[in-house]
Amino acid sequence: MAQNGAQALLQTLVDCDVDVCFTNPGTSEMHFVAALDQQPGMRAILGLFEGVVTGAADGYGRMAGKPACTLLHLGPGLANGLANLHNARRARTPIVNVVGEHATYHRALDAPLTSDIEGFARPVSGWIEVSEQAEDVARDGARAVQAAYAGSGQIATLILPADSAWNDCPESATPLSRPAKTKVATAQVEAVARVLRSGEPTVLLCNGDAVTEKGLALLGKIATATGASLMGDTFIGRIERGVGRVEIPRLPYFAEQAEEALQRFAHVVLVDTKAPVSFFAYPGKASTLTPEHAGLHTLAEPGENTLQALADLVDALDANAAVAPLTELQRPELPEGALTPESIAQSVAALMPEQAIVVNEAATAGFAMPGFTACAPQHSWLDLTGGAIGMGMPAAVGAAVACPDRPVLSLQADGSGMYTLQALWTQARENLNVTTVLFSNRKYAILQVEFMRVGAVNPGRKAMDMMELTRPDLDWVALAQGMGVEAVKVENAAAFNQAVAAALSNNGPNLIEAVL
Amino acid sequence: MAQNGAQALLQTLVDCDVDVCFTNPGTSEMHFVAALDQQPGMRAILGLFEGVVTGAADGYGRMAGKPACTLLHLGPGLANGLANLHNARRARTPIVNVVGEHATYHRALDAPLTSDIEGFARPVSGWIEVSEQAEDVARDGARAVQAAYAGSGQIATLILPADSAWNDCPESATPLSRPAKTKVATAQVEAVARVLRSGEPTVLLCNGDAVTEKGLALLGKIATATGASLMGDTFIGRIERGVGRVEIPRLPYFAEQAEEALQRFAHVVLVDTKAPVSFFAYPGKASTLTPEHAGLHTLAEPGENTLQALADLVDALDANAAVAPLTELQRPELPEGALTPESIAQSVAALMPEQAIVVNEAATAGFAMPGFTACAPQHSWLDLTGGAIGMGMPAAVGAAVACPDRPVLSLQADGSGMYTLQALWTQARENLNVTTVLFSNRKYAILQVEFMRVGAVNPGRKAMDMMELTRPDLDWVALAQGMGVEAVKVENAAAFNQAVAAALSNNGPNLIEAVL
Repeated sequence: MAQNGAQALLQTLVDCDVDVCFTNPGTSEMHFVAALDQQPGMRAILGLFEGVVTGAADGYGRMAGKPACTLLHLGPGLANGLANLHNARRARTPIVNVVGEHATYHRALDAPLTSDIEGFARPVSGWIEVSEQAEDVARDGARAVQAAYAGSGQIATLILPADSAWNDCPESATPLSRPAKTKVATAQVEAVARVLRSGEPTVLLCNGDAVTEKGLALLGKIATATGASLMGDTFIGRIERGVGRVEIPRLPYFAEQAEEALQRFAHVVLVDTKAPVSFFAYPGKASTLTPEHAGLHTLAEPGENTLQALADLVDALDANAAVAPLTELQRPELPEGALTPESIAQSVAALMPEQAIVVNEAATAGFAMPGFTACAPQHSWLDLTGGAIGMGMPAAVGAAVACPDRPVLSLQADGSGMYTLQALWTQARENLNVTTVLFSNRKYAILQVEFMRVGAVNPGRKAMDMMELTRPDLDWVALAQGMGVEAVKVENAAAFNQAVAAALSNNGPNLIEAVL
Repeated sequence: MAQNGAQALLQTLVDCDVDVCFTNPGTSEMHFVAALDQQPGMRAILGLFEGVVTGAADGYGRMAGKPACTLLHLGPGLANGLANLHNARRARTPIVNVVGEHATYHRALDAPLTSDIEGFARPVSGWIEVSEQAEDVARDGARAVQAAYAGSGQIATLILPADSAWNDCPESATPLSRPAKTKVATAQVEAVARVLRSGEPTVLLCNGDAVTEKGLALLGKIATATGASLMGDTFIGRIERGVGRVEIPRLPYFAEQAEEALQRFAHVVLVDTKAPVSFFAYPGKASTLTPEHAGLHTLAEPGENTLQALADLVDALDANAAVAPLTELQRPELPEGALTPESIAQSVAALMPEQAIVVNEAATAGFAMPGFTACAPQHSWLDLTGGAIGMGMPAAVGAAVACPDRPVLSLQADGSGMYTLQALWTQARENLNVTTVLFSNRKYAILQVEFMRVGAVNPGRKAMDMMELTRPDLDWVALAQGMGVEAVKVENAAAFNQAVAAALSNNGPNLIEAVL
C-alpha cells in the first residue's frame, strides 16, 4: 500500500514501542494528524499549549521508562515547549520530539512562521535531525527512538518538513537496538570500595538509576555494611519512596545549608550524578558545594551502568547479606486547625493512597511534604528538575497517562501553576486520575526569600508587586472549573482532609485550592 | 553615589527614554528588581508568564514607537517568551530584551537552570550582547536601545549575568544616536515612477511605514494620480484605518486567493515589504505569489526610508495635488438575531469608539471584521504578524500601557487565547482599558479548513479531537473571573450589542465570551 512519510513515521514509532503522542499541531502538521487518524497503535492527546505537551511527555517518560513522541508546530510551537524540555533534559527523560517544519522548498522564502527551528532545539536536544526527504523519515524515526534512549535518556528532536510528511515513503523502518550503558571499570568500583572501607565519614550522593527501587536496595546494603551516609540530589526526576524502601535525605536547596550538610564528610562519592553545586550564585558565597577538605570520587557517571556498579560495589564490600533499615508504615493523625504547609503535609501523609505518583512543584509551600510522607505507602516522587516552573500540572498529565492504574497527586504552587494551567483541560478531557493540591499563598514566596538573601535591600512597594500574586487574587476554583475540572477551595485543615479524601475516591481530575 | 550594574543599567535605559519594563523575574534578577524599586523613571509591570511579558512588549512597541524593556529569568524564562518575540520580530517592533543569567563564574558549573541563553535568543534577535562585567552594563544598555531602533525596528537582547548586576558600575551611559534609515536612491524612485506612468495595471504592496497615517496619505495621492492599486500585506504590525484615511485592501490569506488577487497586475511594486509568498506550502501549489507574467519592483525595502521614498515618488509623478478618496463615516445598524462572525463585526463597527486600538487575533472567526470596520471612526489595527498564536491578549496589555487614553479592543479567538490567557490577570492588575471579544467557536477552525486543503482525507474522530476544543468546553467567563476580569457570556446579537456598549463605557478590563 502506498504510504506517505507521516504514515511511515508513525508505523515506525509504533513498531519501536512509542505509542503515545502529545500534540498541538498546526497546518504544516496536517498530514501527520491524518496519519494519526489511521494509526490505531498511537494514542493522540491534545494540549492547549505546547508547554503542556512537552511537560506531559516529560512526566510520561519518567513513569513509563520509554519515550512518548510530541508533535509541535514549527519554531514557535517548539519554543513554547522549550522550558519543559529543559526540565526533561535535566530529568534525563527520553522524548522523541517531533517538530513540523515548512516544506523544504518553502523554507528559503522566509514566510511569517519561518524560524531557525534547529537553533531553538539545540540547547535542549541530545540529538537533532531534519528529514530532508520523505524516504528518510521512517529511518530517522527509528534513529530518534534509539537516540532518546542513549546515555541516561535524552531528547531526540526530529524536524519534519511538510513535504517529507506528504510525499511517499515506501517502507517503515525496523527498530534499532537500544544503546547499552557503559560498564563502570572494576578498578573504579574498587577505588570507591577502598574509600568506604576506610571508615572515614563518607556520603554517597545519588540520582538516576541509584534511586530506583533496585538502586536504593543496593545502596541500603552499602550503607549498613560500611556506615556510609546516603543522600539524594536536591531535585530528582523520579525517586521511589515509602513502605519497604530505603529513604534517603536530600541535599538542601539553599547553598549554605547544603554546604553545612556536606561539611562533616571526608569523602563525597557520586552515584549517577555530578559534583554538587548551588542552584544560584550569591554575592560572596561559593558556588561549589563539595567541602574543600573532602575527597570527591565517582562510582558512576550519568549514562554509565549504575545498577551494575552498585551491585559490583556490594560484592566488593561483601555486603550482600547486609540488611538495610526499611521504611515502616507510619501514618500521622489527620490534622485539625489552621491550614499551613505542615498541616497540608500531615493530611497528605495520612491519606496518601497506595502506589501514588507524587508530582512535586509545591516550591516553598511544600517544604514539609517530604518529611511527613517518608513513612507513607509506596509512591513514586517526581521533582521539578530544571527549575523552569510550569512543569507540575503537565507532568501530572503524562504520569497519569503512563500509569492509568495509579493515582496522581499533583502538589502545585500557585505561581508556577499559572505558567501551564492549560494542563487542567487535558486532565479533564482524558479524565485523568489527578488530584491537584494547589498551594495558594499568593506570592512568589521563593523570591521574597531570595530578594533578602542576594543582599538586596528591603523591598518596597514596586519590588513587592513583582513578587506577589495579589490585586487581584487568583481564584483557582474558577480557573479549574473554566477548564472542566471539579474544584473546591478550603481554608482549614478539616475541610482540606475532607476534600483530599473526596478527590482520591473520585477517578477523574480534581483541584483543591488550599489557601495559606 | 555607589551604584551597581543593575542600577546603572536602569538609569541608562530611562535616560534613553525606555520607561516601561514588562517582567517576570527570578532569583538571578533580584538585584534588578531591587534597582527597579529605587528607579522612579521606570514602570514595572508583572506578567504571570513570559509569553505575556514579551507579547506586551510587542504591543507596547508597536503603539509607543519606542521600545519597552523586558526582564526575563534565564534561558527558560526567555524560552517561554520566544513565540511572542517571533511575532515582534515579524512586526519589526523595537524591544530591549533583558535576560538574566547566572553569575559569570557560575555558568560553567552547569547548575539545573543553566542553558544556552544565546542559543535560544539568536533566532529572534537582531542584536545580542552578554555584559560580561558590571562596568560594561550601562554602555551595553545604551547600545541595546540603539540596536532596537536599527533598521525598521528589531529585538535587542541584553544578557545580564547576576554578578554584572550586583557589582559596581560607577557611571550610567549617555544615550546613543538613533540610527538613520537608508535613503532610497533617486534612480530607484524614478524606475518605479516609470512603471506607474506606463499605465499598465500595477499594485503597490505595502507594509511598515507605508501604512502609517503619513504613508497612506502619500499612497492615496499616487493611486489617484496613476490609477495604481494599493494593497497591504496579509498581516501588518500596525496600520491606521477609519474616517479620513485611505483604506487599502489586504492580500488574501489563502494562497490561491492571493494568487488570484495579484493575477491581473502587470507590475508588483514593493513598498517597505518583501515579495509575497504563501503562508504555508501545499502539495502541488506554488509558494511564491508574484504572477509569472508580472514585473517585480521595489520602492523601499524594510529599513529604508519609506516615507521619504513615497514623498519623492509623489514629486516624481507630480501628484502633490492629487486628492485621494478618504474614508467617510458609515456606521451599520446594530445587528439583531443570531451571533455570527458577521453580526459580531457589524456590532463592533456600529459601536467602535473614537481612536480605538484593535488587536486582532480573531483568526477565522474575525474574517468579517476588516470589511465592517473600514468606515468606522479612526483606529489603529494590530495583526498577528508571525503566526505564533497567543499574541493577542498580551499585545492588548502593551497597547493599553502605551496609550492609556485610547480604548483597546482585543479581538481574540478561543484557541489562540488559551495560549497566553494569563494576560487577563495583568489587564486586571493594571486596570487597563481593554475590552476582549472572545470568539468562542470551540475549535481550531483554521485547522479544520487546512486539513482538507492540504489534501488529507476526511478527518475521523481522532483527528477531529486534535482540532476541537470540546469535551470539555472552555468557560471563558470563569477563566476571566478567575483572574479578576469582569466577564459575560452572550449567545445572540442583542446581548452582544449590550455587552460591548457596557464594556466600552467601563474604564477597566472586560471580557465578552461570544458563543458562535
